[in-house]
Amino acid sequence: MSAVVKLEDCRERIRKELDNVVNFWLKHSHDAVHGGFFTCIGRDGKVYDELKYVWLQGRQVWMYCRLYRTMERFHKPEILDAAKAGGAFLRKFARVSTSSGQWKCAFCLTRDGKAVKVQRTIFSECFYIMAMDELSRVTGDSDMQLEAEQMLEQLIYWVRVDSSGLGRSQLPGNAPTNSMAVPMMLLCLVQQITEGRKPEVVQKYRELGQWCVQQILQHVQRDGSAILENVSLDGAELPGCQGRVQNPGHALEAGWFLIQYSAEWGDEQLQTTAISKFVDLPYQCGWDKEHGGLFYFLDVDGFCPTQLEWSMKLWWPHCEALVAFLMAYSRTKKPELLQSFSKVYEYTFSHFPDAKCGEWFGYLTQEGKVALDFKGGPFKGFFHIPRCLYMCERILDDLLANKD
Amino acid sequence: MSAVVKLEDCRERIRKELDNVVNFWLKHSHDAVHGGFFTCIGRDGKVYDELKYVWLQGRQVWMYCRLYRTMERFHKPEILDAAKAGGAFLRKFARVSTSSGQWKCAFCLTRDGKAVKVQRTIFSECFYIMAMDELSRVTGDSDMQLEAEQMLEQLIYWVRVDSSGLGRSQLPGNAPTNSMAVPMMLLCLVQQITEGRKPEVVQKYRELGQWCVQQILQHVQRDGSAILENVSLDGAELPGCQGRVQNPGHALEAGWFLIQYSAEWGDEQLQTTAISKFVDLPYQCGWDKEHGGLFYFLDVDGFCPTQLEWSMKLWWPHCEALVAFLMAYSRTKKPELLQSFSKVYEYTFSHFPDAKCGEWFGYLTQEGKVALDFKGGPFKGFFHIPRCLYMCERILDDLLANKD
Repeated sequence: MSAVVKLEDCRERIRKELDNVVNFWLKHSHDAVHGGFFTCIGRDGKVYDELKYVWLQGRQVWMYCRLYRTMERFHKPEILDAAKAGGAFLRKFARVSTSSGQWKCAFCLTRDGKAVKVQRTIFSECFYIMAMDELSRVTGDSDMQLEAEQMLEQLIYWVRVDSSGLGRSQLPGNAPTNSMAVPMMLLCLVQQITEGRKPEVVQKYRELGQWCVQQILQHVQRDGSAILENVSLDGAELPGCQGRVQNPGHALEAGWFLIQYSAEWGDEQLQTTAISKFVDLPYQCGWDKEHGGLFYFLDVDGFCPTQLEWSMKLWWPHCEALVAFLMAYSRTKKPELLQSFSKVYEYTFSHFPDAKCGEWFGYLTQEGKVALDFKGGPFKGFFHIPRCLYMCERILDDLLANKD
Repeated sequence: MSAVVKLEDCRERIRKELDNVVNFWLKHSHDAVHGGFFTCIGRDGKVYDELKYVWLQGRQVWMYCRLYRTMERFHKPEILDAAKAGGAFLRKFARVSTSSGQWKCAFCLTRDGKAVKVQRTIFSECFYIMAMDELSRVTGDSDMQLEAEQMLEQLIYWVRVDSSGLGRSQLPGNAPTNSMAVPMMLLCLVQQITEGRKPEVVQKYRELGQWCVQQILQHVQRDGSAILENVSLDGAELPGCQGRVQNPGHALEAGWFLIQYSAEWGDEQLQTTAISKFVDLPYQCGWDKEHGGLFYFLDVDGFCPTQLEWSMKLWWPHCEALVAFLMAYSRTKKPELLQSFSKVYEYTFSHFPDAKCGEWFGYLTQEGKVALDFKGGPFKGFFHIPRCLYMCERILDDLLANKD
């Protein structure tokens, strides 16, 4: 067994990294002219593209508000003002009306807010809702909270009743599937919307939360030996690459969502399943024994995935693994979970942070070399790293406060 | 200067590779049950996914017919029958009617021909047309040739008059652009449809061919120092990553399309531009000085591209480079062009062919290690490699026959 990290040192490093990452985005990402955030930011902080990706706008608003609301040292006007400006930009520009008469959120906007692309999925809307709900919590704007709830109702309708409003044509060879991202995101939204709310609100979303958990659990396949990203609507394995694909980082993220949910509802059995199937299993399958780090995609039968980036080491699966293992350890105190956390921690902190320019690299080769050196891009913004550092710092505070 | 390949040795190797690659696909890709071709084929020939990608179905039909029609040793019933079966599968299943009442070709079908996905672009249709035109040339089926021409008329309408039939919604931040792929494909189709046809047919497509060439030439940017993949409709540089992206393999492919066109019409000036701007320039910019091979994507200002695979070495840009340099050399006899061909040839033949299982690997890391080991996938089929080997063998036959 390799060494286990010292929790005090770990918290110290994580706290410093969080400060560093927050400062990087405060300094480089704000658009003082048009509002909102630049998200395509080079290694040294320079903006290399002015497009504004809505997922990342919503996530940044959410993260700023969460830090402002729950961490003393981030309760600063500068952060609140940035979150408000981001929220205003989103409300003004992100929603576009569709031919079906429903509202959708754009995926990408020009610097001044013109829609560039609308995806036929629910994810832009999810991050919009997260932003609005969290922002309403710091501003007390109940209209905004209502708007978040109304958009969530629209999403639930698209997912559970009729998806035609998303604009996807129904094709005979393309049966609807259960992709893990969808129930994961909805579960995340249920947790967001109900946190600290009145019992009737919590109750209102109780069934949806249970449904999301069941949908996520359907991805445990092959007698419990694999988490598969896509299954049929009735929980059977799908044919071909689509059915065999595994995304270890995504499974680990689902893992800590489920641990959180099981803690909230006191569901011990769910916690056990979450840790063994969604945390330990994807880590065991997904860790590169030769070079270290988590693979991005794998094929459960060992075929070569068709995603060109399958063997790359991305920042976010490592962020999710850190949260998952530390949360699992804090719930169970099982030393092997701290052991795994330590291994992920060592890899992550020795490979991703950029000692020269701050923030973290996002994309490494299989061997661990930096393959793309930007700090922000179409899918990397102010979200996975600060969320991970924030979650880990809070869990460590807890663990260290309750140390015997 | 490094050594130049001996043309006889080179032709010998290329001829053997072509035989090997043809045999691999004849052996492993035919679906005797439902017709058409499997295209997801593992390193050793095993089918790992039964989906049928329409680009690759069309390309395989085209390639079989072209080999059958123009090369003595491939004029075999086995190849003709396979091409006919592929063509029948395409005609039966590839076309789907859209809400606008126009025909589109699906992008992907199930094994038994049900549409899985339809793209909002013209490329599936392009490869369908190529297949039908070439197949009609070996079968003498004039209905089929007419069908190819009718679909081409539809494409021209989508590209030059009204693109709404493609199903893309017009968004205020997404101005129409000139992407190099579109005029390249149309030029390729003009050359396909008019080859050896009566003067009135050649004349009918004359203006379209000229338009395509002008559209391609608009991609020469920055005072002739760069080929950019996307420009505005009036030939200006676009902002951001989209405007700065370079795809050296694609520029090289455009290069040999233009050399071919210039030979057909006796346009010396165009040939000079094609060789200097579309062959030599992308090779100079796109060649990896450290590890050898052509990068997949580059940013003209040296920013890191946002495509995760930007630094990978793919098989097809190397195929295009081989054809482009050998064709440029055969037209001009300039030794530096043969020198560049030799360098690409050495890299290609020492990295891509799979000595153990036959055929070529498609996807290498920047350092030249095999990153994905399958022989066929959603975008790699029986096309770039055999087309390259076929073109090179014919050019070499010519060069060697006319050697003084």
